[in-house]
Amino acid sequence: MKKITGSITTPTGFLASGVKAGLKKSGKEDIAIIYSETAAATAAVFTTNTMAAAPVLVSRNNIKKGNARAIVINSGSANAGTGDLGLKNAEEMVKLAAGHLNLPTDQVLVASTGVIGVQLPMDKIAAGIAQAKAGLSVNGGENAMLGIMTTDTFRKVSVYEQQLGGKTVRMAGIAKGAGMIHPNMATTLCFVTTDAAVAPAILDKAWRDAINLSFHMITVDGDTSTNDMAAVMANGAAGNKVIDQASGQDYELFYDMLKAVCTDLAKLVVKDGEGATKFLEITVSSAPSFAAAKTAAMAIAKSPLVKTAFFGQDPNWGRILCAVGYSGAQADPAKTSLMIGGVPVVKAGLDAHPDHQTLKKVMAEKEIKVEVELGLGKEQATVWTCDFSYGYIKINAEYHT
Amino acid sequence: MKKITGSITTPTGFLASGVKAGLKKSGKEDIAIIYSETAAATAAVFTTNTMAAAPVLVSRNNIKKGNARAIVINSGSANAGTGDLGLKNAEEMVKLAAGHLNLPTDQVLVASTGVIGVQLPMDKIAAGIAQAKAGLSVNGGENAMLGIMTTDTFRKVSVYEQQLGGKTVRMAGIAKGAGMIHPNMATTLCFVTTDAAVAPAILDKAWRDAINLSFHMITVDGDTSTNDMAAVMANGAAGNKVIDQASGQDYELFYDMLKAVCTDLAKLVVKDGEGATKFLEITVSSAPSFAAAKTAAMAIAKSPLVKTAFFGQDPNWGRILCAVGYSGAQADPAKTSLMIGGVPVVKAGLDAHPDHQTLKKVMAEKEIKVEVELGLGKEQATVWTCDFSYGYIKINAEYHT
Repeated sequence: MKKITGSITTPTGFLASGVKAGLKKSGKEDIAIIYSETAAATAAVFTTNTMAAAPVLVSRNNIKKGNARAIVINSGSANAGTGDLGLKNAEEMVKLAAGHLNLPTDQVLVASTGVIGVQLPMDKIAAGIAQAKAGLSVNGGENAMLGIMTTDTFRKVSVYEQQLGGKTVRMAGIAKGAGMIHPNMATTLCFVTTDAAVAPAILDKAWRDAINLSFHMITVDGDTSTNDMAAVMANGAAGNKVIDQASGQDYELFYDMLKAVCTDLAKLVVKDGEGATKFLEITVSSAPSFAAAKTAAMAIAKSPLVKTAFFGQDPNWGRILCAVGYSGAQADPAKTSLMIGGVPVVKAGLDAHPDHQTLKKVMAEKEIKVEVELGLGKEQATVWTCDFSYGYIKINAEYHT
Repeated sequence: MKKITGSITTPTGFLASGVKAGLKKSGKEDIAIIYSETAAATAAVFTTNTMAAAPVLVSRNNIKKGNARAIVINSGSANAGTGDLGLKNAEEMVKLAAGHLNLPTDQVLVASTGVIGVQLPMDKIAAGIAQAKAGLSVNGGENAMLGIMTTDTFRKVSVYEQQLGGKTVRMAGIAKGAGMIHPNMATTLCFVTTDAAVAPAILDKAWRDAINLSFHMITVDGDTSTNDMAAVMANGAAGNKVIDQASGQDYELFYDMLKAVCTDLAKLVVKDGEGATKFLEITVSSAPSFAAAKTAAMAIAKSPLVKTAFFGQDPNWGRILCAVGYSGAQADPAKTSLMIGGVPVVKAGLDAHPDHQTLKKVMAEKEIKVEVELGLGKEQATVWTCDFSYGYIKINAEYHT
């Protein structure tokens, strides 16, 4: 498996575009279409938020057959908290895109992101979708990525290539950040294209597993959005033998590539977390179960006291152990150890008296590993998060509705 | 029931003191003793954090008979994450206080608050306890309160008086803030004294009920401390007929007073939340159950996006409904309504288009009511929280270990 440069149009048979429809105050790209020129297997996961946005409701329905060929996305407005009219507008977006692309409506997914509670300006949307259709091209991946961004400060893309059953298979993904990030079935918007040939049911399983170990392992602020959606389209243009079972070498190779793309994107989302100055990789090991390890790691990752301590470059291990303690995961202080940046800080629940200069250097780094050993079993989990800074407050207190 | 000025020594038969033992860098009061001159019924609840501090472990044991007569408290150091030596030191604090007060050790509770992971300087502690014993007086309530404070910016005290069975009964409470505040069996340190006569088992029930509706209904940052403890001592010096059942007029009057003291203190803790500029009262009503209402209200109260929006004085209702949506409580957008400061903002899940000037005035206030109606039942819950400001980041990023 080789990491390559490119975009979501790098896999064969995919076109994309991103256009400026006037939805964003900034005037930047705000409508995108991703399109497979041929039939595709498609899988998607969605937010579990009961206040799910209209596009989530529509796409949840349209994914059922697993053969969607196009995704139309707008940024600038979330089409959430918009009731019946919002639902009608999401359906209209699907209809417009399906009409232009000559597809049945249930082969089109729709996604929105932006401010909650405002109705979509359907005239601008309609013109934007027409323009986006006209602009579809193998060079449109870059603009499509711009079209899904909101408070993101940099582009989030990941592309891989590998030999699979004697054929060259490519896979590419894009994602948006940067706030309201917390896992619950899906997080943020994420779209992956691949020219691998995979049966819909197998793609669905691989997708869920890959998301569970990537987007479900990150948190920025503990808020699960109303608009979360992650979808993958596999059109088989690479010509490999169709992967039709969830085992064997081809499946493993495909799954590893999928996990790599999702993990890359999930980490990029965290790195661009609102106001983030530090990227934290938190591993809890020797836990009685994966669930317990994840629970403890997520409690650390979500703790405002831990996150502000890292922003302040303070190795305040008491806050880390405190978070483990209230997480609900089984823990025994006398068996708990902690390393920060590879430096033993706590041994058997007690201060390990690390060298202050060494620790100071570690805390000053941009990327820091936090490793907790519970001493209670053999399972482990790794989550990724960022620190909590003045920047987070600034972005979120000044982002006015 | 009448609110009066006073301190925890206002109820008859209680002495207290607070002295400067040199544990706090600031040089302020850091050891306190609260003492009942006669036998007392005592109840206490403790943190559920598995990394519970040594004093919590010791006090959990000493509360078993329900007849503790003294509480010794230090601030400046939490005696948490301190292992066997920490446990020995907490036991030693009890022994020292018990010796000076001529009490069996199991009639003394111990509490600590401050930095985690540092061993107590037992020479200073011993001298401080001796000095605190010598200083015990009916005028010592004020100094005892100073002795339990950490990052608090103001004093938290609540005192009531009422007639109960023909006798004048007084009750007083103190609490500390101001971070690592999230309910889980008890929150922060809180000590209440009363000269009412109550049987230990009845006091225990009333105490747990009162804490459930006060300290368990607040959150500052979602972090449940290792040192949380809330205790009440009732010495019967008022001479009322002993309350020995959890019903009847005397019990109700007593319970109402207890709930009033605890609610006052819980709100004061939130008002002094680290960096707080707003006090938010969040009520979720017409819920299918109290638990569902509390779950939804707590999700709103904990959401960094909601808290930063209030700091920014932005009536961003999408974030509030989003939090309800991911809380886990049952919700239906079409049945959900929201008022902020009495102004209808969302009706049946849709923007109610409130007058902007009116809403702007509401958002500029120091205390704001947030009311969510789920339209799904008859139960409700109210929680209290504060906003998330630059001040929170500053306090917690710069509070170095």
